[in-house]
Amino acid sequence: MTQRPPAEIGMPLDEVDTPALVIDLDAFERNLERLADRVRDTGVRLRPHAKTHKCPVIALLQIARGAVGVCVQKVGEAEAMVYGGVKDVLVTNEIVGRPKLRRLMALAHVAQVSVCVDDPLQIADLDTAAAEAGVKRLPVLVEINMGGNRCGVEPGAPALELARRIGDSRYLAFGGLQAYHGSAQHLRGWNERRAAIAGAAQKAAETRDLLAANGIACGTITGAGTGTFEFEAGSGVYTELQCGSYIFMDADYGRNLDAGGQPTRAFEPSLFVWATVMSRPAEERAIVDAGLKALAFDSGPPLVWDEPAASYERASDEHGRLGITAATNRLKLGDKVKLVPGHCDPTVNLYDWYVAVRGERVEAIWPIAARGALY
Amino acid sequence: MTQRPPAEIGMPLDEVDTPALVIDLDAFERNLERLADRVRDTGVRLRPHAKTHKCPVIALLQIARGAVGVCVQKVGEAEAMVYGGVKDVLVTNEIVGRPKLRRLMALAHVAQVSVCVDDPLQIADLDTAAAEAGVKRLPVLVEINMGGNRCGVEPGAPALELARRIGDSRYLAFGGLQAYHGSAQHLRGWNERRAAIAGAAQKAAETRDLLAANGIACGTITGAGTGTFEFEAGSGVYTELQCGSYIFMDADYGRNLDAGGQPTRAFEPSLFVWATVMSRPAEERAIVDAGLKALAFDSGPPLVWDEPAASYERASDEHGRLGITAATNRLKLGDKVKLVPGHCDPTVNLYDWYVAVRGERVEAIWPIAARGALY
Repeated sequence: MTQRPPAEIGMPLDEVDTPALVIDLDAFERNLERLADRVRDTGVRLRPHAKTHKCPVIALLQIARGAVGVCVQKVGEAEAMVYGGVKDVLVTNEIVGRPKLRRLMALAHVAQVSVCVDDPLQIADLDTAAAEAGVKRLPVLVEINMGGNRCGVEPGAPALELARRIGDSRYLAFGGLQAYHGSAQHLRGWNERRAAIAGAAQKAAETRDLLAANGIACGTITGAGTGTFEFEAGSGVYTELQCGSYIFMDADYGRNLDAGGQPTRAFEPSLFVWATVMSRPAEERAIVDAGLKALAFDSGPPLVWDEPAASYERASDEHGRLGITAATNRLKLGDKVKLVPGHCDPTVNLYDWYVAVRGERVEAIWPIAARGALY
Repeated sequence: MTQRPPAEIGMPLDEVDTPALVIDLDAFERNLERLADRVRDTGVRLRPHAKTHKCPVIALLQIARGAVGVCVQKVGEAEAMVYGGVKDVLVTNEIVGRPKLRRLMALAHVAQVSVCVDDPLQIADLDTAAAEAGVKRLPVLVEINMGGNRCGVEPGAPALELARRIGDSRYLAFGGLQAYHGSAQHLRGWNERRAAIAGAAQKAAETRDLLAANGIACGTITGAGTGTFEFEAGSGVYTELQCGSYIFMDADYGRNLDAGGQPTRAFEPSLFVWATVMSRPAEERAIVDAGLKALAFDSGPPLVWDEPAASYERASDEHGRLGITAATNRLKLGDKVKLVPGHCDPTVNLYDWYVAVRGERVEAIWPIAARGALY
């Protein structure tokens, strides 16, 4: 159930209740500008992934800086975006089941909606649902497996087969290829990521060329994430970029290395979990009120920001134990700390509100409209 | 934001949209009865932990079977319980910060509310807040560290010091000791758990006796979880049990061994994430629509129920990859499967609704009122 916001507009950050999900607006806006700047003259379209933020307010800020629309993974996310004012949404995922397909088609009447497939049955079901809803020429992309072994048919002939079926259907239109290489995003070395995307781009290009040789034009080839976008943008193959995490960064992306072998500074952390020291039972430990229900731990623990003496050692459901390695004037009972999440996307999904701060003052409170939009 | 329920009353389970959080009511009710039966004649009170379910509907079912009230960790959980009809709530946690203390005192006017401390400053702040709110004699328990090194003062003299301060305050009353041994719950061997709780009970008893020798009566000694409750119940020291997970069980608790060295059958899995096979790109893998935003992974991946050929191998934000080891008639595109969460508490916190099924029919849809109640 939606909880009350932990803050009010105008409040100093110190008074914001905890745990809260805080955006540092200055850093966030710099991240928005940086990616927009880097994409602007490449001839490639930017369609950021809204699965990261789940918030139409942020989607519209991205679009205001040149994004052509957003990506989503779930129909519920598409609903939040379209009803929040976004006019062009790509569902970068396979959608299965009649209730979801009906909802998807309802959106296609009020916005540009496209979707991915990797199976003939999905195409048949989409065609039926489009027919029932009176939707004509819904763009459908074929997802190809770039080596992550998740969804997607193999590049080449299997993709051609699906593209033909889409073209042969009555109410769908072939929209292109999804060639997202998810497992390349967190390869730590710059050269490793570059090589992985070079391989992905080659597979996508060969598939594109096979389609062309069979008379099927491939309008869009979409992929890329925050870890690799520069390679897709420069590939001459990809036409759209799906970066999501760049707006917030997180501890895990922060461990990627740049071309010089240094931790990447392409973007900066702008998302924090604001937490309180709720127990200080021993010199060497402080307990904060943010644990497994306030932070995602799949990519490691959060970083304690601005406090080199402390590290987040262990989480339980509602507690986090900070290990303290030196005398510090902070981290007394009641003190508040910023934690940089290990992984931003599933952390965002735990909150109903962003508390957006400018400096030390709450400037806005944004609803995370698609929080919990699982279906 | 609260999402629409994925089901309607009377619907067959097969039609419930996914991912959904499903309770098998028959198994759930058997779990409720089993713990009630085992506690009934022990002379020990049962106060189940509502951090597991976050749902006043379930709290009232527990109370109808003899529980004296519930435990919670957060003020927001206490609000959900009290406003949902629970008349006695113990906050098994330290509460820090004026906004939370004000909310806690508001509840103390309409229900029996008690809370834990491990620092003199918390006592002073509670006393001030109680005075401001006109609350008299709020019961306050001293939390003692049972070896988990999270919150809690050390047993013995430090606990006596805090108990005295509570007794000396104007608006608080000493309520007893919290002696929860969290790190004992998942020790796999029965004898290991028994030994750990024997040690905890001894520390609690020595502290109780020290308090008594100083004229302070210890009305309540509270602790225990699903992994160890039989030992606390039989200790002659503990007076209240805090078990939470027993209603649902989860894959992690299912790995605990009983006295005979077999995986415990004290309770049975009653909570499932209902998921759809959304992609079936290769013989050896099926992709389901439940990943890091639909399941907690801190205690390992979910078990695939009723399908020995499949195991949940890898999660990404919105996908789960099932490895398929043999030919199976199930797990075709669109098939639905039950997943037993690795850890129930943080999984529940991802959902707004329980879909409660009797056999294959949806009997009730219960709001998870304290979902996201972080503060």
